[in-house]
Amino acid sequence: MKRGASEAEIEAVKKRIEEFGITPVPLPGAERMAIGTFGSTSRAAADAVESLPGVAEVVPVSRPFKLASREVIAEDTVVQVDGVPVGGRSPLAVMAGPCSVESRDQLFATARAVRAAGATVLRGGAFKPRSSPYTFRGLGEEGLEHLAAARDDTGLAVVTEVLTPADVDAVARHADCLQVGARNMQNYALLDAVGEQPKPVLLKRGMSATVEELLLSAEYILARGNRNVILCERGIRTFEKYTRNTFDVSAIPLLKRLTHLPVIADPSHGTGKWYLVAPVALAAVAAGADGLLVEVHPSPDHALSDGFESLTFENFAALMTQVAAVARAIGREVDAGGTRAATLRA
Amino acid sequence: MKRGASEAEIEAVKKRIEEFGITPVPLPGAERMAIGTFGSTSRAAADAVESLPGVAEVVPVSRPFKLASREVIAEDTVVQVDGVPVGGRSPLAVMAGPCSVESRDQLFATARAVRAAGATVLRGGAFKPRSSPYTFRGLGEEGLEHLAAARDDTGLAVVTEVLTPADVDAVARHADCLQVGARNMQNYALLDAVGEQPKPVLLKRGMSATVEELLLSAEYILARGNRNVILCERGIRTFEKYTRNTFDVSAIPLLKRLTHLPVIADPSHGTGKWYLVAPVALAAVAAGADGLLVEVHPSPDHALSDGFESLTFENFAALMTQVAAVARAIGREVDAGGTRAATLRA
Amino acid sequence: MKRGASEAEIEAVKKRIEEFGITPVPLPGAERMAIGTFGSTSRAAADAVESLPGVAEVVPVSRPFKLASREVIAEDTVVQVDGVPVGGRSPLAVMAGPCSVESRDQLFATARAVRAAGATVLRGGAFKPRSSPYTFRGLGEEGLEHLAAARDDTGLAVVTEVLTPADVDAVARHADCLQVGARNMQNYALLDAVGEQPKPVLLKRGMSATVEELLLSAEYILARGNRNVILCERGIRTFEKYTRNTFDVSAIPLLKRLTHLPVIADPSHGTGKWYLVAPVALAAVAAGADGLLVEVHPSPDHALSDGFESLTFENFAALMTQVAAVARAIGREVDAGGTRAATLRA
Amino acid sequence: MKRGASEAEIEAVKKRIEEFGITPVPLPGAERMAIGTFGSTSRAAADAVESLPGVAEVVPVSRPFKLASREVIAEDTVVQVDGVPVGGRSPLAVMAGPCSVESRDQLFATARAVRAAGATVLRGGAFKPRSSPYTFRGLGEEGLEHLAAARDDTGLAVVTEVLTPADVDAVARHADCLQVGARNMQNYALLDAVGEQPKPVLLKRGMSATVEELLLSAEYILARGNRNVILCERGIRTFEKYTRNTFDVSAIPLLKRLTHLPVIADPSHGTGKWYLVAPVALAAVAAGADGLLVEVHPSPDHALSDGFESLTFENFAALMTQVAAVARAIGREVDAGGTRAATLRA
Repeated sequence: MKRGASEAEIEAVKKRIEEFGITPVPLPGAERMAIGTFGSTSRAAADAVESLPGVAEVVPVSRPFKLASREVIAEDTVVQVDGVPVGGRSPLAVMAGPCSVESRDQLFATARAVRAAGATVLRGGAFKPRSSPYTFRGLGEEGLEHLAAARDDTGLAVVTEVLTPADVDAVARHADCLQVGARNMQNYALLDAVGEQPKPVLLKRGMSATVEELLLSAEYILARGNRNVILCERGIRTFEKYTRNTFDVSAIPLLKRLTHLPVIADPSHGTGKWYLVAPVALAAVAAGADGLLVEVHPSPDHALSDGFESLTFENFAALMTQVAAVARAIGREVDAGGTRAATLRA
Repeated sequence: MKRGASEAEIEAVKKRIEEFGITPVPLPGAERMAIGTFGSTSRAAADAVESLPGVAEVVPVSRPFKLASREVIAEDTVVQVDGVPVGGRSPLAVMAGPCSVESRDQLFATARAVRAAGATVLRGGAFKPRSSPYTFRGLGEEGLEHLAAARDDTGLAVVTEVLTPADVDAVARHADCLQVGARNMQNYALLDAVGEQPKPVLLKRGMSATVEELLLSAEYILARGNRNVILCERGIRTFEKYTRNTFDVSAIPLLKRLTHLPVIADPSHGTGKWYLVAPVALAAVAAGADGLLVEVHPSPDHALSDGFESLTFENFAALMTQVAAVARAIGREVDAGGTRAATLRA
Repeated sequence: MKRGASEAEIEAVKKRIEEFGITPVPLPGAERMAIGTFGSTSRAAADAVESLPGVAEVVPVSRPFKLASREVIAEDTVVQVDGVPVGGRSPLAVMAGPCSVESRDQLFATARAVRAAGATVLRGGAFKPRSSPYTFRGLGEEGLEHLAAARDDTGLAVVTEVLTPADVDAVARHADCLQVGARNMQNYALLDAVGEQPKPVLLKRGMSATVEELLLSAEYILARGNRNVILCERGIRTFEKYTRNTFDVSAIPLLKRLTHLPVIADPSHGTGKWYLVAPVALAAVAAGADGLLVEVHPSPDHALSDGFESLTFENFAALMTQVAAVARAIGREVDAGGTRAATLRA
Repeated sequence: MKRGASEAEIEAVKKRIEEFGITPVPLPGAERMAIGTFGSTSRAAADAVESLPGVAEVVPVSRPFKLASREVIAEDTVVQVDGVPVGGRSPLAVMAGPCSVESRDQLFATARAVRAAGATVLRGGAFKPRSSPYTFRGLGEEGLEHLAAARDDTGLAVVTEVLTPADVDAVARHADCLQVGARNMQNYALLDAVGEQPKPVLLKRGMSATVEELLLSAEYILARGNRNVILCERGIRTFEKYTRNTFDVSAIPLLKRLTHLPVIADPSHGTGKWYLVAPVALAAVAAGADGLLVEVHPSPDHALSDGFESLTFENFAALMTQVAAVARAIGREVDAGGTRAATLRA
């Protein structure tokens, strides 16, 4: 639609589209409204709509993903995670915390440390997907309660993983952002379920997913009505043996070109080695990432999961200083709690 | 335990293990009983047990998978799919049918054709995992009903995919074997759910899963009490562009060496090209597969999903003749309905 | 050209093509002559040629490989390795021997054993490509002399690897077939050099080469005038850790469809584990391979290279019995020395 | 050896090592001398040497690469490319120019443009490795002469690829640094040949090479006596289809940890898309790369090879400004010709 198209004009376009047996999907942007349609449409329908008042143009979209595409929505989407903006021209959003929530003490100590260093979102797993059924699978609901308490203590927003549709309600009750992990990137029942609730979703790229498949999985969530999706590059599987995964840094600018959704980077899973986390985090920032997801643990050697890739408090604080310098070098700021604090005050 | 160990001796061993705070898991075999334990055990516990009457030996198992390991259970597991035996020295089990159940007519025509050619299990998707939310996602419950009706019509056993824990009951009510697809190989809530019901489970290797990860996912199902797991090699993702996936034929003998579970091959998804299905199916049989899972469609050009990899009725019948010849060459028979017919009569 | 086109007609067509500034390449087949052209051609040239006498049709070839393509040469190429035919309807050609030539005794013992079991070609490395500069790099010329002596002793044809253009003459003097290894598949100076001499070339697929790149490398050799190229699938690199490489069995039927050149399989490098060699060899035969390349060593545990993937004499003999059975099941014979013996007598 | 160990002490140690039948390799560092040995050594030899005067310690090196290892040589190697230092604390070295040398005019225009923007080394291919024999393979010796003339014109140092041992002399005569391309990373005859001449070598990682294999290939060159090796990450092959390769940014800090050799990044081949070159170049710098190798062309749309990944003069100049900012953010400078100019004056 043209800028300033009236409500009546928009309604008339939607009605005309419906007459062709096609479902119109309103896509409001900051400056103007777009109306999407999916599946096969006829030339006749396009012609009929193009001549209506208030219509700027009819654009055929060639990508298999639609709602996620920059061809459909050109402006950056900014996702609000309980007052922390992610994407667009927002400051870099740093999400940090332990791989697993192991105890209230461990979580509170970590939350305070990462907040002091400048993180604005606390991460921590309550439900853990583990390759083996015999390893620690997380504290479950107790973990969720610890996370909510840590938010109350520190003011940090909370992101945590949800593994199955049946847990979506419980996780959404306690967390500010629901993570869908790499192993579940194509768990469509789960994508549908997180798409039908309003909290933001952090969607991780699958272990061997293409960029297009990641965007199609985002499309599942968007198509259910939840437009608050953050994408996360976390490394793909290759033959290299020194690293756990190969962090695909080029996926960041590629995604920023293909989609309006925010894109963050997980250098912890992306490398699997604590000593590679800092350089890869800086690389991701230099390549244009909208945020970072970093594992931090009071005592990585004693972590119940993924200790080898976790940073100590000291290493995380040092990283944050470097991150701020690289972010400024490419014309971006790190939040360091300011935006959120202002939001909470307002 | 030694062969012929008494119930009392077995109970005594279990009790002694429990005194060390460890849970014993009885693993009955055709010839003798094994008792497994998991997690860390002490040398003291091993010594205490080894001296009890009826104990043959205490074997430390090094693999991260236990119940799935040949080190724990040396004899081949034979899974019964509604009277069709899969694994061990059973005849080759051929499972065939359309990618998606599209209509009653399409399904019945296909079921009769694959039965006539010698298949003993009917495959067909009622719930379809699709990369894009805008493509056909299956007929759902209606599809399950068509499958059950096709079983009544042809006597074929039925295998179909289940996508989420909430659907496990419905699928188990209509099907004889529940398929967990490649995208869900590490959907642990789903693995738990199919492990808690008694119908056999067909577990497909994930798109970039290692053989060890496949076995760990099987371990999830086994650990919940369901010992009827069939593994399926269906190709892994590589850089090759002519094929949809790269069928890993060496995974078949490798799995047969590492595990006692039956292993079948899916040359349709494994290649993505109908003209490669027959040679790869023969290769899988020559390499020792216990069965095949093949897509067959009355009119592949008009299939709603994966038509390009489906065989016509004629091509499938021709393949079955070749399969029988290669199977005989390595000392194995194809069922062609005989075993199941005998079972049903009995 | 039409069948029975005269020499004069063929010359006229070549001359007309040259008038357009294009080089004609005669491609004689068993039944008729084709004339290829490469690079960009004009519609005008095609029209001008199509109207000449003796011309059957002008076919635009879409593949980036030309001389290797079945679109250009429809009939199977049969390569003669010193009297052993490879490809087309020839019996399966089995090439076997040690990874490296270590000594005259080791080589002679192996040559006699593989001959007794039915192999017709002896393989063995004199120049070895090794990842590390500190490992055994082969006996060099002395190894070539042992190979030639073993041929005299057993009547087996000999294939061995050449690593660099400077060695092509020496290797061609002693061997009946020159192997270009996986690491050198895109060593274009070497491809040019083996293309400019007349001995057959065994070209192995690179570690992460696509099927199209393999055919383009074959095209280098063919374009230099040597039409005796045998392709070899030997596994590609993936993330799987149990195996050294992932043997791509579907590449065999795919190559047979795309090219007229013979295709053989190397299950030894293709898996890296002796216990997977036999099932993967049988799989390759079932999938339509024209031959096998198998590592055999008198004492694999003491081999100077790749012992873990070598078969003992006993295992190789057992494999040959199974190979013959599977070959017969798909309507193919194993040579067992007969063809070559007949050739040598003639 | 201890700091300040005398020549006599060093000689005594070498002599003692030789008495055990082992070859000692002196490895002089800035602060002290190390003496390496390769292959299996005995505990007795270690004990005998450890007690000699001037010996600091005997360190067993576990890596399969030795001369390339930081365990053997702890200090950064700084390679001089005709006066341009690469590695250690040197300024970032930017090497830029066209994929292929196409003409004197094209090369001179590009050389002047990249020099003006701050590059200190000119890259350009005279011998081009191409997948197809029918595409442009470079100007050969004429290209080398153009490169030498462009050096005279601009003062830039010159790096260009060498494809085969027979060309090493000609390339070394005209260029200041010899590039070994990804396809030839395991062309051992070529590695030997560049190792036996004194000009620096730029060694690119193979398309599917592991980091360890890259270091083993460097070891070949080092073992022949040429210690001036620069490593280059240029992307590995994965299943992703949007990009030509997947740039492995974590390889940069990983290599810096494992080896003392300089590490540079090629974001042009590493992505294959001009619009990804700048963000990936910045990522590489942020991750600690010692330099960049970037394709620049006066008119990328008309390039004879790889135009789609080349930058225009304007885009390259803009990139250099950003590179300088990111380099400074992590405490590093870009050269911009100063060091070399100073060297040439001296």
